[in-house]
Amino acid sequence: MLTDNPLSALVERLLKDGHGRLFNQRSMRAGQIVYGGDEAADGDLLIVRSGRLRCFTSFEGKELTLYMLEAGDAVYLHGGAMLEVRTAADVLLASPSAFRQLVLAEPELALAVLPALDRLAQKSVRMIEDIAFHGVKHRLIRVLCDTADRVGRPAEEGIVIDHLPNAEDFAMQIGATRQSVSTVIAELVRSGILYRFGGGSMVISDLGRLRRELADVR
Amino acid sequence: MLTDNPLSALVERLLKDGHGRLFNQRSMRAGQIVYGGDEAADGDLLIVRSGRLRCFTSFEGKELTLYMLEAGDAVYLHGGAMLEVRTAADVLLASPSAFRQLVLAEPELALAVLPALDRLAQKSVRMIEDIAFHGVKHRLIRVLCDTADRVGRPAEEGIVIDHLPNAEDFAMQIGATRQSVSTVIAELVRSGILYRFGGGSMVISDLGRLRRELADVR
Repeated sequence: MLTDNPLSALVERLLKDGHGRLFNQRSMRAGQIVYGGDEAADGDLLIVRSGRLRCFTSFEGKELTLYMLEAGDAVYLHGGAMLEVRTAADVLLASPSAFRQLVLAEPELALAVLPALDRLAQKSVRMIEDIAFHGVKHRLIRVLCDTADRVGRPAEEGIVIDHLPNAEDFAMQIGATRQSVSTVIAELVRSGILYRFGGGSMVISDLGRLRRELADVR
Repeated sequence: MLTDNPLSALVERLLKDGHGRLFNQRSMRAGQIVYGGDEAADGDLLIVRSGRLRCFTSFEGKELTLYMLEAGDAVYLHGGAMLEVRTAADVLLASPSAFRQLVLAEPELALAVLPALDRLAQKSVRMIEDIAFHGVKHRLIRVLCDTADRVGRPAEEGIVIDHLPNAEDFAMQIGATRQSVSTVIAELVRSGILYRFGGGSMVISDLGRLRRELADVR
């Protein structure tokens, strides 16, 4: 468990101090889906202890990824949004009344949850700005740079991203169609910035140039 | 001051109980702008006591309205987002350390702020879904229906909306260009659902039909 995050540290302490009965503790395997409205969990606060979950929304078969949740993140479960476990995860659920009891006993819990919620709210605003102000190419390049920073492996050829998400995944992430994502990737490959490496890997031959594109592309 | 909102009621009580010194109380006139990063207010929590503020973001001269804030709403001030006072407003600002002191003395404050923040987060998610999943026509019709519900005045001719926001305002609200908004309005006028009334007013001759359009238009 990560404990450098204030919410993670606090939650582990609360569990150790015997407040565990107020939380619904769940271990979830990769692929499991949590529906906001499901299992009488509507309105519950979900706190991630470990693992990785993808929060998404969907409409007529199209999915849109809102954000990834990791240890120390917290989100209220609601009708619309869904969570998909990406990496086996331990989560805590607190009903509104249990959360109330916990906060009255330990106000620090609320002080740690507030910035976690605000972080997600900020991500949503960034996403709105991205979709409203920028085209698919800009959004995709930004995601490629973020992915390179997060999981990129420096090699002789450039930055290697193993198991690159496919066009479908990127499309869900930036709110675009799979087709327009494929078009932009093909364009970046043609211009020599990206190339495919085999085994689902991708090389960014010049991350600096890719980053500079961001400034030029609306 | 509205006091049917839990946060409004609690804040008025805190002010009465002598906690006012921990808040920075400000009365703002219509038209004033609050910049997230300004006046060392970055990271402050803003709570609305009365009036109406528009939270927006901008990029290269294009503005996008994120949400309206009214009594009982609360938002963290950050670099990107800006607030425009629409109706003279009384607001409270709490620095992170002042807010911490307040919550430790009265945990109910945090319990009232959390749902207020979550409400805005939900609005952001709705907005992302709207922009990603729906076209300009759908988004504009939804806003027209909302406006009719909020300020529409029933008359013989239909629902009259006095001082209808102009195409520019609608564009900012739904993240579209002024031109595409004008095109859709012209289309709705041609089909007889809307007509202009003079003096900046607009009549929705058949609100039921306008609502049904929502289901048909992606």
